[in-house]
Amino acid sequence: MANIKEVAKRAGVGIATVSRVINNSGYVKKETREKIEQVIDELGYVPNEIARSMTRQRTRIVAFVLPHSNHVFFSELLYHVENNLYDYGYKLMVCNSASNRHKEIDYINMLKNNRVDGIIFLTSNDIESYLRPHWPIVSFDRHFQNIPFVASDNYAGGRLAAEALLRQNPQTLLFIGDDAQGELSRITTEVSKRRLGFVDALEEAGFKNYRIIEYPQGDAFIPVPYIHELIHQHQDVDGIFAISDMLAQYVVEALEKAGRKVPDDVKVIGYDGVRGYLNMGKQMTSVGQPITALAGALVECIMKQIEGKPVDSVVLPINYVAGDTL
Amino acid sequence: MANIKEVAKRAGVGIATVSRVINNSGYVKKETREKIEQVIDELGYVPNEIARSMTRQRTRIVAFVLPHSNHVFFSELLYHVENNLYDYGYKLMVCNSASNRHKEIDYINMLKNNRVDGIIFLTSNDIESYLRPHWPIVSFDRHFQNIPFVASDNYAGGRLAAEALLRQNPQTLLFIGDDAQGELSRITTEVSKRRLGFVDALEEAGFKNYRIIEYPQGDAFIPVPYIHELIHQHQDVDGIFAISDMLAQYVVEALEKAGRKVPDDVKVIGYDGVRGYLNMGKQMTSVGQPITALAGALVECIMKQIEGKPVDSVVLPINYVAGDTL
Repeated sequence: MANIKEVAKRAGVGIATVSRVINNSGYVKKETREKIEQVIDELGYVPNEIARSMTRQRTRIVAFVLPHSNHVFFSELLYHVENNLYDYGYKLMVCNSASNRHKEIDYINMLKNNRVDGIIFLTSNDIESYLRPHWPIVSFDRHFQNIPFVASDNYAGGRLAAEALLRQNPQTLLFIGDDAQGELSRITTEVSKRRLGFVDALEEAGFKNYRIIEYPQGDAFIPVPYIHELIHQHQDVDGIFAISDMLAQYVVEALEKAGRKVPDDVKVIGYDGVRGYLNMGKQMTSVGQPITALAGALVECIMKQIEGKPVDSVVLPINYVAGDTL
Repeated sequence: MANIKEVAKRAGVGIATVSRVINNSGYVKKETREKIEQVIDELGYVPNEIARSMTRQRTRIVAFVLPHSNHVFFSELLYHVENNLYDYGYKLMVCNSASNRHKEIDYINMLKNNRVDGIIFLTSNDIESYLRPHWPIVSFDRHFQNIPFVASDNYAGGRLAAEALLRQNPQTLLFIGDDAQGELSRITTEVSKRRLGFVDALEEAGFKNYRIIEYPQGDAFIPVPYIHELIHQHQDVDGIFAISDMLAQYVVEALEKAGRKVPDDVKVIGYDGVRGYLNMGKQMTSVGQPITALAGALVECIMKQIEGKPVDSVVLPINYVAGDTL
């Protein structure tokens, strides 16, 4: 493993200059800084993070980078993350990255330049190569190498959805997910485990009459015409597990538009368990994520890293949220 | 009007020190800084903002201070504010102030200490005395002295709600607002104009059979038991204007729980016009706020101030949002 001396030598500068770049503790010419950062990357040099966290200039800002802060589940998570951070004396910066990978990289650069102390990442973009071990980063619902993550127990959640549907003695079940491993999305997230748990529970119960639909995530929240087409194609299905409550909502709409009643003709269960505001109809039956606990775990994980303490990934238990669709 | 020389003299320091405090451009001892800030407040000294904005160290961060970022309308506004700011090269910090006035004052201090370049304020707390003219602040839906605001045309919105209800030939109308001028809330906001427009339009049409309910905002989004009690007390009402869609949703729930059908027995119109996610029932009929234009106006207003340019308050037109409740 490379040390600071080797970095300084290869970059043709003194150790103090490398230290200033790492700790952002004094002026370094832009070209010199870039050269040093390049050498750090080439050599895979990892500064002593505990020492670094002691000397580093703190901004007391954590960034939350997520696709859409107006998504019903994410907006709830964001709310609790901000409140938790504030209790640590920290402020929250928000970045709606949607499918904009450049915006995400922009925030990674802010972390590098010490304009934020840490980042909470919620992304399905291909940014792995931009991340370094031991940076104060925590990921939600996604594995990156050497980066801790926080998630609900997606596998158990998938099993729970299967068991809830099986209790209704269904003929044919359908899983609809947005985590396809196609050209548009080569990323495996924690969320894929919802499908794995679902399938395992069905197989263990000897239930074979199920179909799996995975479509690739695009820019849209939910590709509505595609969902309507799916429902049209699978008219024999009498139970559906949708990978999120928002998707489940569009599934229910598509079913009712096609003249199929929920839950009389078709049972539907979603995932997330947040109650949307401005809902004047059915409540979704769902696998509930412990949203305040997830927010607390994300903040604790990022704060420990900022303080140079060791951290582990956290998986939190899910629960059954009774509703009107199953 | 005091000038920088008088501030320096009264604080017992040099002009350069006062300048450093105003522009946050160099080291000043904490006690000296506090003394100077105190004198600036005492003398009501206003720095030349255009000069200040040129020399001041920029953070390229704007804070959005609002009660609840998970509120369906505010989360939508926040989303668009962040995207707009990003196009200016600015980052967004979020603060959920709820009823926490101290959290708001904390952010005002960050502005004073140049840890943020500007603040977008959405508040009904009593913070007027903490604000200074010419600080880069824009307020949403509320007047502060010498601070520009952005709002939808709340008066026209109130009129539009009245006109929509009058077209249904009602017997008795009810207005429910959360803007009471009681002990809990002595603040007049732009939102009060929704009531004024509503009443003016009814009076002009010669319609006298209406009642006005104003309850004071508390910590809760909506005081649900109180709303149910109100509906119980006003059983003869056949048309209701609720001051927000969220309130309107609880009104509809209370009506239906009391066995009164919407819109058959009672017509309801709300205000905001955002479509909630996870809605599997009726859509609210509403006065729609132009949410992307409002976000754009807020960001333009704060950016102009940061650049030291003159700004005016902005009032944007509302529109009728057809739904299922009227």
